[in-house]
Amino acid sequence: MPSFYEELRTIQRKNGSLLCVGLDPDITKIPRTLLAHKDPVYEFNKRIIEATSDLVCAYKLNLAFYESLGQGGWETVHRTLEEIPEAIVTIGDAKRGDLGNSAEMYARALFDGHGFTSCTVNPYMGVDSVQPFMKNPSQGVFVLAVTSNVGAKDFQYLSVKGKPLYEYVIGRVKKWNTAKNCGLVVGATRPRELKRVRGLVPDMPLLIPGVGAQGGDLGLAVRYGCDSRGEMAIINASRSILYASRGGDFAEVARSAATAMREEMNRWREEYFVT
Amino acid sequence: MPSFYEELRTIQRKNGSLLCVGLDPDITKIPRTLLAHKDPVYEFNKRIIEATSDLVCAYKLNLAFYESLGQGGWETVHRTLEEIPEAIVTIGDAKRGDLGNSAEMYARALFDGHGFTSCTVNPYMGVDSVQPFMKNPSQGVFVLAVTSNVGAKDFQYLSVKGKPLYEYVIGRVKKWNTAKNCGLVVGATRPRELKRVRGLVPDMPLLIPGVGAQGGDLGLAVRYGCDSRGEMAIINASRSILYASRGGDFAEVARSAATAMREEMNRWREEYFVT
Repeated sequence: MPSFYEELRTIQRKNGSLLCVGLDPDITKIPRTLLAHKDPVYEFNKRIIEATSDLVCAYKLNLAFYESLGQGGWETVHRTLEEIPEAIVTIGDAKRGDLGNSAEMYARALFDGHGFTSCTVNPYMGVDSVQPFMKNPSQGVFVLAVTSNVGAKDFQYLSVKGKPLYEYVIGRVKKWNTAKNCGLVVGATRPRELKRVRGLVPDMPLLIPGVGAQGGDLGLAVRYGCDSRGEMAIINASRSILYASRGGDFAEVARSAATAMREEMNRWREEYFVT
Repeated sequence: MPSFYEELRTIQRKNGSLLCVGLDPDITKIPRTLLAHKDPVYEFNKRIIEATSDLVCAYKLNLAFYESLGQGGWETVHRTLEEIPEAIVTIGDAKRGDLGNSAEMYARALFDGHGFTSCTVNPYMGVDSVQPFMKNPSQGVFVLAVTSNVGAKDFQYLSVKGKPLYEYVIGRVKKWNTAKNCGLVVGATRPRELKRVRGLVPDMPLLIPGVGAQGGDLGLAVRYGCDSRGEMAIINASRSILYASRGGDFAEVARSAATAMREEMNRWREEYFVT
């Protein structure tokens, strides 16, 4: 098995892409024609995947969207993951965090149950809440550092020993990263912090949500999010791709939107990095 | 609809109990005779509930245990909740935390989908990650403050503006508590902190895990966890009740263990409070 870092680098090179598509389908926003299907969300995801899988390095599924579907949600995650080509990184955006015993169970659910390549976790409960996710070098763990939302400033920026809490969190994650499979979540809405974080972790993958609908700057996300080779940034877009068209041509238009985004990222990569 | 605080106080008085039973059944530890059932975990929970529902104020389900069951887990949660008498508080121990949009979906899944009376949330992502859970005064939200696990010390105790981070978190929760439905999670393994927290929030319910297998002191949990009337502490025990016997008499023995624990708590209440 390749390590998680290798897997990510390989697919980023193969598809020439830093783009991650966030498969977070809102049932009220997907084309009405799909509602006739037994599992409309799966059907929608399947077509988005078919239309974009040569353009992305990763797909991210925010589990909140699937849990809100009720009983069928688990199966929809499962079937969606089966549609994703094996070389592409999958991210279970679960933001879990619980004490050792329970964290083990969450890790099992995400990695063994669903078969995600990687997931997101919340650091608040400390070492034993995240280490169960970090055991296998072929499975990645993105720890929340600086998030893209408004509330990020409530705690993540608090000064701790002369630096913001998120930097302190990052210091711990560096120590915990013995299997070399950790990454960090840093919002694209925070370019200054993104630059700082990349300086602290030159080699870690960074999962960067918040471009598109949330208003993060794509050029800065590429510039500050990539490693020195112009890689290892995973830039997520959801709504701007999924709902580029609400009509029967949604998959095609999603493909155009993904292509445009990948190309814009690659133009920035050419500008800032020797690739 | 009564408010969440009222509902909690009412059931604590009716059943004369601060005890919460954590329904976190590990399939490898439940009696083998139950494994013949289609849904052994539900069957186990049902019998524990039947044997203890007049002795508790709450049941807490840690969702990690159910997610690790795979597709059937959602249904097992649902069926378990249907067995719990309506007057008893139910806690979806999910420790969720995600940005506004996704937090809305998690709240919907826990409150509307499953029908929990309350849930636990993680504060790291700040205001918009927790407020969607706090809208309805009849539904409670326990925010993680000081957790019972080893890793709690990694971040929760860091000094922020001269006080530990968890106190700073509590300060925010007090501000966010406009619907008067917030509570806090404080581990029984942290009696000193529990005392401090109760001083900061004289009226909030405190969810206190960590007695029993984790080694927290029950007397101190009662003494420092209760409000001035000897109420509003919810003291959770899981393994020490669920697996008091591993044989066919498990429900009966669980009842004895729950009775003993409730009585011990009530002796401490009589000692420390005028009830």
